[in-house]
Amino acid sequence: MRTRAAVALEAGKPLEVMEVNLEGPKAGEVLVEIKATGLCHTDEFTRSGDDPEGIFPAILGHEGAGVVLEVGEGVTSLKPGDHVIPLYTPECRECEYCLSGKTNLCQAIRVTQGKGLMPDGTTRFSMLDGTPIYHYMGCSTFANHTVLPEIALAKVRKDAPFDKICYIGCGVTTGIGAVINTAKVELGSRAVVFGLGGIGLNVIQGLRLAGADQIVGVDLNDDKEEMARHFGLTDFVNPKKVDGDIVAHLVELTKGGADYTFDATGNTTVMRQALECAHKGWGTSIIIGVAKAGAEISTRPFQLVTGRNWRGTAFGGAKGRTDVPKIVDWYMDGKIEIDPMITHILTLDEINHGFDLMHEGKSIRAVVVF
Amino acid sequence: MRTRAAVALEAGKPLEVMEVNLEGPKAGEVLVEIKATGLCHTDEFTRSGDDPEGIFPAILGHEGAGVVLEVGEGVTSLKPGDHVIPLYTPECRECEYCLSGKTNLCQAIRVTQGKGLMPDGTTRFSMLDGTPIYHYMGCSTFANHTVLPEIALAKVRKDAPFDKICYIGCGVTTGIGAVINTAKVELGSRAVVFGLGGIGLNVIQGLRLAGADQIVGVDLNDDKEEMARHFGLTDFVNPKKVDGDIVAHLVELTKGGADYTFDATGNTTVMRQALECAHKGWGTSIIIGVAKAGAEISTRPFQLVTGRNWRGTAFGGAKGRTDVPKIVDWYMDGKIEIDPMITHILTLDEINHGFDLMHEGKSIRAVVVF
Repeated sequence: MRTRAAVALEAGKPLEVMEVNLEGPKAGEVLVEIKATGLCHTDEFTRSGDDPEGIFPAILGHEGAGVVLEVGEGVTSLKPGDHVIPLYTPECRECEYCLSGKTNLCQAIRVTQGKGLMPDGTTRFSMLDGTPIYHYMGCSTFANHTVLPEIALAKVRKDAPFDKICYIGCGVTTGIGAVINTAKVELGSRAVVFGLGGIGLNVIQGLRLAGADQIVGVDLNDDKEEMARHFGLTDFVNPKKVDGDIVAHLVELTKGGADYTFDATGNTTVMRQALECAHKGWGTSIIIGVAKAGAEISTRPFQLVTGRNWRGTAFGGAKGRTDVPKIVDWYMDGKIEIDPMITHILTLDEINHGFDLMHEGKSIRAVVVF
Repeated sequence: MRTRAAVALEAGKPLEVMEVNLEGPKAGEVLVEIKATGLCHTDEFTRSGDDPEGIFPAILGHEGAGVVLEVGEGVTSLKPGDHVIPLYTPECRECEYCLSGKTNLCQAIRVTQGKGLMPDGTTRFSMLDGTPIYHYMGCSTFANHTVLPEIALAKVRKDAPFDKICYIGCGVTTGIGAVINTAKVELGSRAVVFGLGGIGLNVIQGLRLAGADQIVGVDLNDDKEEMARHFGLTDFVNPKKVDGDIVAHLVELTKGGADYTFDATGNTTVMRQALECAHKGWGTSIIIGVAKAGAEISTRPFQLVTGRNWRGTAFGGAKGRTDVPKIVDWYMDGKIEIDPMITHILTLDEINHGFDLMHEGKSIRAVVVF
């Protein structure tokens, strides 16, 4: 079949919207009509050429929602008409990682996914001249139709709006999951969140959900405060306006250091500050942001020996097929909010404008609706 | 009263054994006759002048065992004749840290202890000319008699031999506790221990106690293998004899990375290797060793984002008054071994020879018996 997609032909160039070929689902695969997709910094990281593992031409996008149109041989958990959210972290429920009970990093299709391929080592997308187009994070949601493995699709309720729940495919789950699954924040905790963008705001609402007493947000942009307060922020800190050491300031503000801190900036200097403003004895710092290629974090080992815990999270530690449907329920039940964060709705033809909005800091989430 | 002690008069000089003055216990304090004391690398770190926080003149030593001779006003949990192990990490059971349930780092007397003083801000030791002599780590066990706060003494059974259980005051508890309290190693785990000295051997017997399936030891000295096997080592690796990358070698040896890794070297390069050979998804790396002043650890944040957990431990996460008596029981019941690690018994006059043995790598633990 043919479908329309925004194709990243080469690193650093704008996406080009065009017709492409799409083969139907092979065994274990599912054809999905994408109804909406968010634009995430990770897409831009790859599009821009900063991602050393970027492969081109590719159809980017990994934060979508849609409807199953057709299932391949052997697919048992999904049928045409089901509403689904693509998962860049699949959940096979059979590999050592899935069965460990300790991680969400399913390894079943990791090698082929990392090469932009379906599990059989080929692509389903191609240019009209036959040139293969690579998949991206196993999702490629910047296409009106896409093919994914069954294990990379979360089945969700049918009454949830696609243009909101697509955000659960990455940003919402990453932020809330970092709090709930990775940090396991307890009622009454004090927390500091660095970076109040699309991930940071979700960390904040995750902290509110977990019952944190103090939720400090740190951002260089004062304009971020208002929205963050809406999601549960209790204290806003702009490091540019702090005299002296930001770590000492945050330790004092949290009465000895925060029980939990979160980096949602991707900046390795900030990651160190996040660790060092965690409470002596038990403070846990979670790295969420993706750092520049080759960048390293560092600290004095004394910071760890005196009880701080340095960890990271990918996709909020969520097991997608199990956890994503629950988060959709939380949204539909009003436990969490998404609507105020979807600041722009675009057509596929306007997708490059969405990246401009991101760079200008004007959007929290721009969503392309098909 | 007067007692005999090995005094560190200044940084970098051998200790001098001499008569010193010792004041009796003030309120909340206890006079202890030290019967035996181990010589630990941390004592040598301070003696040598490498410790930027070292204060002189001081009576070093923090790994002792002895008998209560006299108690000060208000002391209720100890009486003359009780056998005790001094605790450089006290347990007041009243501060925010003790009550958190998350750490052993009692803060009740931290500030004065760090300055070489008793909690009232003075010293009990002095030279015969009246010059104050500082306490060390709140213990000063290189003296035949010493004074400690009640909260810094673990009461232990009377049938346990002083020249063995003194080692529980630091090395044994630090190593075993890192496994049991900090890492909470589960049955069937795979582990890697870097550095097979006095701490590393106790990590190994802690791992055996916890039921680890694979216990890999890494040391530059082949002579360490035999003793380590006695304590439960299953695989010995000498990095000098490994072709290529030591991390890749250890990941392969542990079939994908170790569930738990421990640094007992104090070398920040080794600390990074320990983190990076931990298993993707859930591997936890524990820093035990004390690094050189100013040294930093570093890694790519990707190591944490993909599920590794970087932590540290002090005194093995043990709450001394609660946990040390249990470890003495484990020794007396044969659950753990200490005797083979006490390689040299010395008199106080021979104490400097003990540090020579440490430098020559000839001792695991040298113990001074009074």
